[in-house]
Amino acid sequence: MIYPGSPHGVHEESADMDVTETGSQNPWEWPESVWRKVARRVSAGPGLIPKAWPGAAPFAVALSFDSDHETIELREGGRSINKLSIGEYGARRGIVRITEILEKANVPASFFVPAVSALLHPEQQELAVLNGHEVGVHGWIHELNTKLPRDAERDLMMRAADVLEKITGSRPRGLRTASWDFSDETLRIATEMGLLYDSSLMADDDCYELLLDGKPTGVVELPVQWIRDDAVYFGMDRMSGLRPYTPPRSVVDIFLDELKLASEERGIFQLTLHPHIIGVRSRIWILKEVIDRAKELGAWFGTHAQIVEYVKDNGFRTAD
Amino acid sequence: MIYPGSPHGVHEESADMDVTETGSQNPWEWPESVWRKVARRVSAGPGLIPKAWPGAAPFAVALSFDSDHETIELREGGRSINKLSIGEYGARRGIVRITEILEKANVPASFFVPAVSALLHPEQQELAVLNGHEVGVHGWIHELNTKLPRDAERDLMMRAADVLEKITGSRPRGLRTASWDFSDETLRIATEMGLLYDSSLMADDDCYELLLDGKPTGVVELPVQWIRDDAVYFGMDRMSGLRPYTPPRSVVDIFLDELKLASEERGIFQLTLHPHIIGVRSRIWILKEVIDRAKELGAWFGTHAQIVEYVKDNGFRTAD
Amino acid sequence: MIYPGSPHGVHEESADMDVTETGSQNPWEWPESVWRKVARRVSAGPGLIPKAWPGAAPFAVALSFDSDHETIELREGGRSINKLSIGEYGARRGIVRITEILEKANVPASFFVPAVSALLHPEQQELAVLNGHEVGVHGWIHELNTKLPRDAERDLMMRAADVLEKITGSRPRGLRTASWDFSDETLRIATEMGLLYDSSLMADDDCYELLLDGKPTGVVELPVQWIRDDAVYFGMDRMSGLRPYTPPRSVVDIFLDELKLASEERGIFQLTLHPHIIGVRSRIWILKEVIDRAKELGAWFGTHAQIVEYVKDNGFRTAD
Amino acid sequence: MIYPGSPHGVHEESADMDVTETGSQNPWEWPESVWRKVARRVSAGPGLIPKAWPGAAPFAVALSFDSDHETIELREGGRSINKLSIGEYGARRGIVRITEILEKANVPASFFVPAVSALLHPEQQELAVLNGHEVGVHGWIHELNTKLPRDAERDLMMRAADVLEKITGSRPRGLRTASWDFSDETLRIATEMGLLYDSSLMADDDCYELLLDGKPTGVVELPVQWIRDDAVYFGMDRMSGLRPYTPPRSVVDIFLDELKLASEERGIFQLTLHPHIIGVRSRIWILKEVIDRAKELGAWFGTHAQIVEYVKDNGFRTAD
Repeated sequence: MIYPGSPHGVHEESADMDVTETGSQNPWEWPESVWRKVARRVSAGPGLIPKAWPGAAPFAVALSFDSDHETIELREGGRSINKLSIGEYGARRGIVRITEILEKANVPASFFVPAVSALLHPEQQELAVLNGHEVGVHGWIHELNTKLPRDAERDLMMRAADVLEKITGSRPRGLRTASWDFSDETLRIATEMGLLYDSSLMADDDCYELLLDGKPTGVVELPVQWIRDDAVYFGMDRMSGLRPYTPPRSVVDIFLDELKLASEERGIFQLTLHPHIIGVRSRIWILKEVIDRAKELGAWFGTHAQIVEYVKDNGFRTAD
Repeated sequence: MIYPGSPHGVHEESADMDVTETGSQNPWEWPESVWRKVARRVSAGPGLIPKAWPGAAPFAVALSFDSDHETIELREGGRSINKLSIGEYGARRGIVRITEILEKANVPASFFVPAVSALLHPEQQELAVLNGHEVGVHGWIHELNTKLPRDAERDLMMRAADVLEKITGSRPRGLRTASWDFSDETLRIATEMGLLYDSSLMADDDCYELLLDGKPTGVVELPVQWIRDDAVYFGMDRMSGLRPYTPPRSVVDIFLDELKLASEERGIFQLTLHPHIIGVRSRIWILKEVIDRAKELGAWFGTHAQIVEYVKDNGFRTAD
Repeated sequence: MIYPGSPHGVHEESADMDVTETGSQNPWEWPESVWRKVARRVSAGPGLIPKAWPGAAPFAVALSFDSDHETIELREGGRSINKLSIGEYGARRGIVRITEILEKANVPASFFVPAVSALLHPEQQELAVLNGHEVGVHGWIHELNTKLPRDAERDLMMRAADVLEKITGSRPRGLRTASWDFSDETLRIATEMGLLYDSSLMADDDCYELLLDGKPTGVVELPVQWIRDDAVYFGMDRMSGLRPYTPPRSVVDIFLDELKLASEERGIFQLTLHPHIIGVRSRIWILKEVIDRAKELGAWFGTHAQIVEYVKDNGFRTAD
Repeated sequence: MIYPGSPHGVHEESADMDVTETGSQNPWEWPESVWRKVARRVSAGPGLIPKAWPGAAPFAVALSFDSDHETIELREGGRSINKLSIGEYGARRGIVRITEILEKANVPASFFVPAVSALLHPEQQELAVLNGHEVGVHGWIHELNTKLPRDAERDLMMRAADVLEKITGSRPRGLRTASWDFSDETLRIATEMGLLYDSSLMADDDCYELLLDGKPTGVVELPVQWIRDDAVYFGMDRMSGLRPYTPPRSVVDIFLDELKLASEERGIFQLTLHPHIIGVRSRIWILKEVIDRAKELGAWFGTHAQIVEYVKDNGFRTAD
């Protein structure tokens, strides 16, 4: 193999990557054609920024919850009973607290759910759709796409969509890759599946069209960011140095600063939360605080699919 | 072996796990029967939430101290004199400061003590019981259960209970696994030993009955959480990236937020502290602050055993 | 090899290092001649501290932005689409927000840009120079100098300078090594290239002349520090324990404390920021805050080259 | 070998450790005689707490500075020019700022200096002693004692003391092991050298006599703690997850909380700082703040040697 796997788990060489032109494994020796191709396999096309939001709202809020529950442990082939119980907490207490807040505030949200998690907790997915929320694809068992054989990725993504459709009665319209681990093939598969959008990449704060090898795909990106993810600040793994070191009051400051500038820029504030992380007693107030503040600023709340539909129809295409 | 050990130290295959039906090591290829079995080896049964707490208190407080002392270093076969001296601190200064605060506040607590630690410091265990506190099982030498041969786990747990009984005169009624490392066999052994409760899992904030392969065991879980553990924020290991990065004032904010919602939800606030961590001059005030605030909110303080007894007798079984 | 590589990636033995005098790999057995030679390969010569700053300003401010963009991922031979999209963010949103603030405040800055990043985003480099900013050398593809064969380091540094000159029309006058990874050969190459200054080392807060094996080189160091680098507090790597744990409000406190003492000491306040890190909605205010506060204190803002030129001409040579 | 090395670098088996009685490498199988022997190789004897401090001060303050400078990098056989420059900063700027504060406040302190650092910067050690400070042993090149052959440890410690005596004119009276890495042999060597005290262990907040295999040695411990060490909160290593995550304002809160309770308990407040860490512009105020607050509380400041001498002569021996 000509390009060495990075320590971060890089996908197998894609067939249409012309690698014969370089004879070296060292990136500083790559010819321009190679680093350009690598850097632009998937890239950001034109921004999709509407002149106005529904109801003349100054900005949009896209809340999402990744209902991973037990799959965080299962996806590694792990069988730790303690770790599985943390997943159970998400399903037993986290989701309940989140749902109560969303219902009281009367705002829609998107739930990204691995198929195995949906099969373990089908009633939660039904209820979410009944309550006007969206359920989107989030892998089969929270697997990392860049670690899969290519055929497996396509098969799992399609089967995952089928499972969600069967449980909720609605065909998923969007995708969030587990751990935002987007392979060389992910976009091609999303196109084949006719998905409306992805929400796993980070090239902008607002929506943009995804390009594959520089060509438009019609798939819209509603971008995420580590900064707006509860797991980043509150992750915990006994065997490594991962700890919930950041004070919750500082995390809410960060979320509200992101929200404030989204409002001033008349863009989108997108947030990714996890039931087993945000749903505990000492953090659930953060969700309420974010919703309250967004309402004060006059936000329009939409599911990810609703926001993407809206920008696709009303997006003013900026030069990119 | 069909299921690979996770990097987090998974137990050897249990005899009654039917693994012949899968021919793959990849979790994304597991059949449904396998991931369901893994996910539900030990699971949360009905919640045990009393309609009222003793004395009409709005909520219960379960304070616990894991008196690991020197065993933190010994359990790894380590002989670092510096690390052993940190354990000594817990026994020499930490326990003294903790005891003084508990006595002044006149509240009971549970001490979970590895047998080796109890044998190194027997007078502390005697005193704890004399003062109305509980002493519970915490392994032999703070060993990780999922790393043990199965027979060793059973043998060590039983011998540990014998040692504590011999020292304190009371048979331990509850278990906390060292590092909350709960193996596939732990619950079965707890049942065999006739233990009233475990306090190592995290599927809820309030008590629930533990199920083994979906069947009730009669053993009650009084759940813990990393969030309510001083070691998470204040851990230190020179050779890794573990550092006490979180400001103590933020840690007390987290504990008090947990306490506040426990009070509003009329549930349990459970806390896990370590004499060598919380017992230092710049952190011991946190314990006092938590107790003072809990008293202001009208808490009922019980040992873990007292709380579990109470919910077992007065628990209103919610649908789970 | 006589001196073992450190775990941190030490360069191959330099030819003029006389290693024959030691027969041991253990540093505690090194003879004095060896540790003295190692400790003083590159060292700090006389400090260059002007009696006054231009316009009688009490201190100088040197803002720098390392426009690494996609090269952070490319330099490791990585092809993570998510990570590449973070680089895109720097080029698409981060640079825009930074440029707007600099233009409004009317202050110059230095951009250190790997050649590959400059080739992916040439218009940004042209614009920077048009706006009165400086573009300096920052490696070819953000490679680590101490990991390179010696010839490769020289070749890449020279080609990088050529690329920047071709794009911007100006020959770069200064160097910042990628990741501040300064090899045994870096200073010799800088001298050969006739560079005015380096900005990668940390022996002082203010400028000093660099010595090579104790001899003056004429190359001036404008020192950096981890403390004044946004990546230190806000770095994120999913696969390790690196997280943006420090609250942004605390980071600005640190920057302003550095600024305040720089002002009192009548020295230099130097800052290193990254478009993809500081350029997000919840952090960009930090840049504005630092500039506003510096202006209140009467700072003189210069590019790194302007400041070094000034101290070279007006530096009062302190005894070192 | 019967006892496996821990991952934290445990010393080779000591000759007088009777290991023949165990046939296992697993700590949970160790017989009582083994874990008792390991746990009590070096232990805390009677506390040495004076009834009163000089001048009727309510408590004592022991400030220490570990002048490691370039040896942090050299001790690993490393040759990183960037890391060496951080050491230079300690010698060039850090020490200057520290000295100025100590002189203005007119308080004595202890400097623990590796021999190689002292040889690179002899004038600083001379000046320290002239100014009434103490210079103590801190290894040869900041080597880890538990990694050394036994003979090497003894040889290096003795040669280090000779170097310091030659430079300062005073024989060192105390020892601080580099990285507080205390081997099975360290105490025996300290006894042989006739040292008054060690300051590397953590079994108490106040002084105590050190026991070797349970027997008094006459060597006094003036204990340290990670909590009262600037490196813990502000350490930085590019290749690992070590970062200066804790806000400086929170670090000073911790130091002042330790100080406050030391004062209330009429004990010792001991602090360990590093010139290259605390000596930067945004942290040096912490040292001033601690001294100011200690003076307000009426502290008596002594070098480590002065405090140990005092408690040895005036210590009220508590039962341990």
